[in-house]
Amino acid sequence: MKTKLLFVFLLMSIFAWAQDEDAMFIKRIHDVTLRDGTCYQQLEELCAVGGRLAGSEAYEKAVQVSVEQMRRLGVDTVYLQECDAMGWVRGGEEIVRIVGQEDGRLRATSLGNSYGTGPKGVQAEVIEVLSLDEVDSLGKAEIEGKIVFYNRPMDPTNIRTFDAYGGAVDQRVWGAARAAKYGAVATIVRSMTNRIDTFPHTGTLVYREGIDTIASLAISTYDAERLSDLLKKEKVQLYIKNTCHPTEMKKNHSVIGEIRGSVYPEEIIVVGGHLDAWDIGHGAHDDGAGCVQSMQVLESLLALGYTPKRTIRCVLFANEENGLAGGRTYAQKAKECGENHIAALESDAGGFSPRGFSFDGHADILADKYRYVTDWLPLFESLGLQFKLGGSGADISPLKNHKTLLVGLRPDSQRYFDFHHTSIDLLEAVNERELKMGAAAMASLIYLFDKHGVHRKKM
Amino acid sequence: MKTKLLFVFLLMSIFAWAQDEDAMFIKRIHDVTLRDGTCYQQLEELCAVGGRLAGSEAYEKAVQVSVEQMRRLGVDTVYLQECDAMGWVRGGEEIVRIVGQEDGRLRATSLGNSYGTGPKGVQAEVIEVLSLDEVDSLGKAEIEGKIVFYNRPMDPTNIRTFDAYGGAVDQRVWGAARAAKYGAVATIVRSMTNRIDTFPHTGTLVYREGIDTIASLAISTYDAERLSDLLKKEKVQLYIKNTCHPTEMKKNHSVIGEIRGSVYPEEIIVVGGHLDAWDIGHGAHDDGAGCVQSMQVLESLLALGYTPKRTIRCVLFANEENGLAGGRTYAQKAKECGENHIAALESDAGGFSPRGFSFDGHADILADKYRYVTDWLPLFESLGLQFKLGGSGADISPLKNHKTLLVGLRPDSQRYFDFHHTSIDLLEAVNERELKMGAAAMASLIYLFDKHGVHRKKM
Repeated sequence: MKTKLLFVFLLMSIFAWAQDEDAMFIKRIHDVTLRDGTCYQQLEELCAVGGRLAGSEAYEKAVQVSVEQMRRLGVDTVYLQECDAMGWVRGGEEIVRIVGQEDGRLRATSLGNSYGTGPKGVQAEVIEVLSLDEVDSLGKAEIEGKIVFYNRPMDPTNIRTFDAYGGAVDQRVWGAARAAKYGAVATIVRSMTNRIDTFPHTGTLVYREGIDTIASLAISTYDAERLSDLLKKEKVQLYIKNTCHPTEMKKNHSVIGEIRGSVYPEEIIVVGGHLDAWDIGHGAHDDGAGCVQSMQVLESLLALGYTPKRTIRCVLFANEENGLAGGRTYAQKAKECGENHIAALESDAGGFSPRGFSFDGHADILADKYRYVTDWLPLFESLGLQFKLGGSGADISPLKNHKTLLVGLRPDSQRYFDFHHTSIDLLEAVNERELKMGAAAMASLIYLFDKHGVHRKKM
Repeated sequence: MKTKLLFVFLLMSIFAWAQDEDAMFIKRIHDVTLRDGTCYQQLEELCAVGGRLAGSEAYEKAVQVSVEQMRRLGVDTVYLQECDAMGWVRGGEEIVRIVGQEDGRLRATSLGNSYGTGPKGVQAEVIEVLSLDEVDSLGKAEIEGKIVFYNRPMDPTNIRTFDAYGGAVDQRVWGAARAAKYGAVATIVRSMTNRIDTFPHTGTLVYREGIDTIASLAISTYDAERLSDLLKKEKVQLYIKNTCHPTEMKKNHSVIGEIRGSVYPEEIIVVGGHLDAWDIGHGAHDDGAGCVQSMQVLESLLALGYTPKRTIRCVLFANEENGLAGGRTYAQKAKECGENHIAALESDAGGFSPRGFSFDGHADILADKYRYVTDWLPLFESLGLQFKLGGSGADISPLKNHKTLLVGLRPDSQRYFDFHHTSIDLLEAVNERELKMGAAAMASLIYLFDKHGVHRKKM
């Protein structure tokens, strides 16, 4: 019995000592990142390219820029991974105008992957609805020949803004197809933000096979309120014109930088974000921040002279916004090559002050691995960071399998939808210290993954 | 034994039920605040007044504005509390210029309560130091007749930015007096911020009795770096001119709005911030945010039809920035009147996303009361908020006694010193949702103070 107690005591002492060592290293990660980190300068270079729409020239320019940035980090290998994805062009002027009203122009942006009206435009009466279900219940009698205006706001009382987004975005994604089913000629949708402002928010829609591919644009919340007020008083006709359209498949490239593991090179840890962005802004938060934070992880570890035991791979995924071809291709190739991904961490929720991490994975392994990593929680709680179960990131989600622990960085989310998919998602919307704090948190977790793995070794 | 177990079980059930009820009410507080709260509009009105320097016309205008705002809330009583405080005027142009250099102007702002050089200005060689101690060790031989330039930065690796501020601000507060002791003719100080930018940060200094009251200005971090670089290469003469000076005592007013308790009116709960601000910006974060959040607490509770058992008093304190006369007078009067303040909560760390509360109080009572309130922690953890022991707020600190639990709202602090005491502390630096989230957190805590008191009743 005494021997057993002694053994437990010894184990606890070793555990405490290991945590002290880890705490000290995590402090050093924060020091070097906050003092010397170049992620904000990297973001500046990336934003200078302009909107990095998948398949566009700007995107390929961004690929070159980040290859160069990866090389500067001094990683072992930098390479590209090709994937094919549908292209899309915004075309010329985008008009949504209240007919017969001077100053009747509504600030609008075409939805990604949508077809425009063509150069003649369409003119029709507008009908306001609050849900897809409402369209169903109104049916052909009320919808046919009209422009449907989806105007259900994100729930302002939901403090989890990503959940509030999830609760409203069906209107943007499926609204056009649903309305077209009953003969609508176009749709407009209230922008996905809690703010009342004048910036329309783009994003993808998905059409249904066999249903008309009608035009669909987002209008700013200010204009949505204005239009809604007017509709309470009178019938309104809108004129809509836009000329966007999908194009042929285009070659895209994900950018990968890798430090090969010194002990277990076959065990791979991914850290990444997506390199593509919507064309109307510079994708500073979405997801330039995630890309430069992921590169900062490598930069900080290398700056500290840390030699990874496992292979750490920074992946800047292609085509997240309108297809996820980069993420799917990456998982596909990993499977084909029989690669062993033990963990993947994505940052794709903005470059704001970090609040913690959320963990995901196959049901067979998640509980065990989550129990294992929560031993590290005290190291993060002292930084004000929490762990929870939940989603990780779109690009790494295709890696979900019986082995890989998936993780998402969770920054403070109150400001994210002020910028998401808009023309104001620019460098100046990102705070350098907040960006670096997120990168340091990520580097700390990657360090622990590398040093301790993601599961208890069998004794 | 069985009876005892049953009793414990009963108590636990009551406790769980009470927490459910509280959780529901706290959800309603968040709902009403995020959906209908007017604090951001109140802040807009307050900022429209301009810099609310204690004793200035703008300050008295701000008093009128907030009296009107309090009245609109529909509280029982609104009144002013007078206090006397030294006035200070910035005077005319403020010049810090490198002599003999075209474009040698450094962006500068006079420190509050300081005396300027007078209209002739001073010209002298500049010497860079990193601490007050360094001035002591250089002594009269090196300091006399010179301009001392304090250039120790805030520690960028300290993730607690208020601690980093505390670690550097001695240069601003005591630097002039220390340098004057050895015959310096003026001092300049690197602005208190982690950013490298072009905005000088003001703030108070304190002279020493019997030592020359030499001029002292803050220069922007960008200009501090530039000057420091130049000093590595050559001797530099600076010309400084400013005409600020303290004035006679002025009447100031704190603004108080009160809902009288329905059961224990003699038990007072204070919630507040300070109404005065530096003159060069609009004091949006410091501390307009705290003022409008405190008013929002009353607004939200009243909007929910809540009838406080105890007296809830919203206090917008006068003269925090350059004297603390409002806070001192308030505590003095409370003592004279034998008032029983059970708790006081201050918001004076910016209108950023809330991270928790820190608790303070007299050593005789703090541990007990803190233990009591931490029973409520699960209600806040689900909102991502933490409790800790630590400072509360300058204005309520004179209330520290054997009864009062003092609390500070702790928002995310990474951006605070981007704006603190600058010309860019303006409305647009405050995010409406973050401001409201802080107000809702405050209202939740005030509700619990009111409903449950701050200590366990004796059975």
